[in-house]
Parts: sequence; C-alpha cells; structure tokens
Amino acid sequence: MSDEKAFGPGADPAPYYRKHIFCCTNERPAGHPRGCCKEKDSLRLRNYMKARTKELGLSDLRVNAAGCLDRCELGPTMVIYPEGVWYSYHSPEDVDEIIRVHLVEGGRVARLMLQPEDKEPAES
Amino acid sequence: MSDEKAFGPGADPAPYYRKHIFCCTNERPAGHPRGCCKEKDSLRLRNYMKARTKELGLSDLRVNAAGCLDRCELGPTMVIYPEGVWYSYHSPEDVDEIIRVHLVEGGRVARLMLQPEDKEPAES
Repeated sequence: MSDEKAFGPGADPAPYYRKHIFCCTNERPAGHPRGCCKEKDSLRLRNYMKARTKELGLSDLRVNAAGCLDRCELGPTMVIYPEGVWYSYHSPEDVDEIIRVHLVEGGRVARLMLQPEDKEPAES
Repeated sequence: MSDEKAFGPGADPAPYYRKHIFCCTNERPAGHPRGCCKEKDSLRLRNYMKARTKELGLSDLRVNAAGCLDRCELGPTMVIYPEGVWYSYHSPEDVDEIIRVHLVEGGRVARLMLQPEDKEPAES
C-alpha cells in the first residue's frame, strides 16, 4: 500500500517472532447464537499446540491465546502472522499438520485454510 | 524466506483484516517479578483503543485482546500485524497517537516503538 511505502515497512524492526500464532480461546455464554471457540475445545488445542512446538524446539515462534477473533462460526480459528493465514482446526491431528506443513516446512494446509469470504462452516 | 517463496505468500488469501492489533491483557499474580500488562491498565487501554477505532469508522481492522505476549517488562505492549510493529503504551494519548499516525496515516510512532532487542523499560 502506498502509505506503507512512504514510512516502512523497509524501515521496520526485524520480526520479534518468526511466526506469531493467535488461537482464539474466547468464551461466550452457553446458547449464544454465534457459539464460541472455547466450547469447541480451543483452549485444550491451543495448549497442545504450544506444548508440541516447544517439544519440537521451535523457539522462534509464539503460540498465543487470543480473545474473540470474530469468526466464531468457523471456530476454533487461529491466524498465523506475518502472513495472515487463517485456519479452522478441530483436533490434535489438525494441529500436528499445521505445525509440520506450515510452521516447519513453510507450506499451507489447504484443507483447513479459511478464505476471506468464509462466514459459515462448510458442513452447515 | 525461501520456504515462503515455494508455496506463497503470493498464493495466500487476501488479508481478513487490513490491520490486526493484539493488545496484551494478561494478568499474573500480584508480586510476580516480571509484572504483567494488566496491572499497568492494559485492559482499559485496549478497550479505549477498540472504542476509538470504532468511533472513527476504522472498520477494516480489529483491536484484539491477547494473552501474554512475553514482553511483560515493557508492558503494556501491543503488536500490529501484518507488519509486526510493537509498541509500549501507557495512556489514552499514546493510543490516540498510534491510531492517528500508524493506523490512519500509515506511519510509525517512533517514540513508542519497541526494537527486537528491547528487554527492559528504557527508564529502568
């Protein structure tokens, strides 16, 4: 974008984390029409991802908990920066695949990726 | 990075948010040696930032709460993606300046920016 070119990002500091992962762990009251990531086990999955990346020695990234990312219907969701790639994931196996393919190999897990226009789960 | 070139980010979806701001609102027990952002009023400042951006009609971004960003000594901290620029901020006036200069004008608030090597507050 033109505004970025004038000031940076060329002049911005080096990244503090190579990959910064934000996993929504927001909880809404039971019965909320949008649901929430926490009721879909997001906290356990985020803790699993954090533990697994640590076990694998991936020390140049951070697996953060985050408040509501506002894509509740597609949850649990995560977004990986700086690339801004979003995933909907539902199991430790999904997490393992994201770690291996995206974080280690630098690829993308196409079957779990969200597109900007995604609003509802594919199966609904 | 070479791994990115092979798979993307050229092929990645468009950004879901133009700017995605993560404000640490983590709370540690009182007296913890690292301190925490919440004891430095981060929740109130984050809520102020969210409300102000909404009032200004900046609808293409999100001001998220986040768990511990692990730069506690420099808190309250925020990081703005995709550019990965970090700020340490302490007042509504700091927030206003980040909104105006960074989010609206596309610049940087140099006096509040963190560098990767920053570990302790400048005044310590």
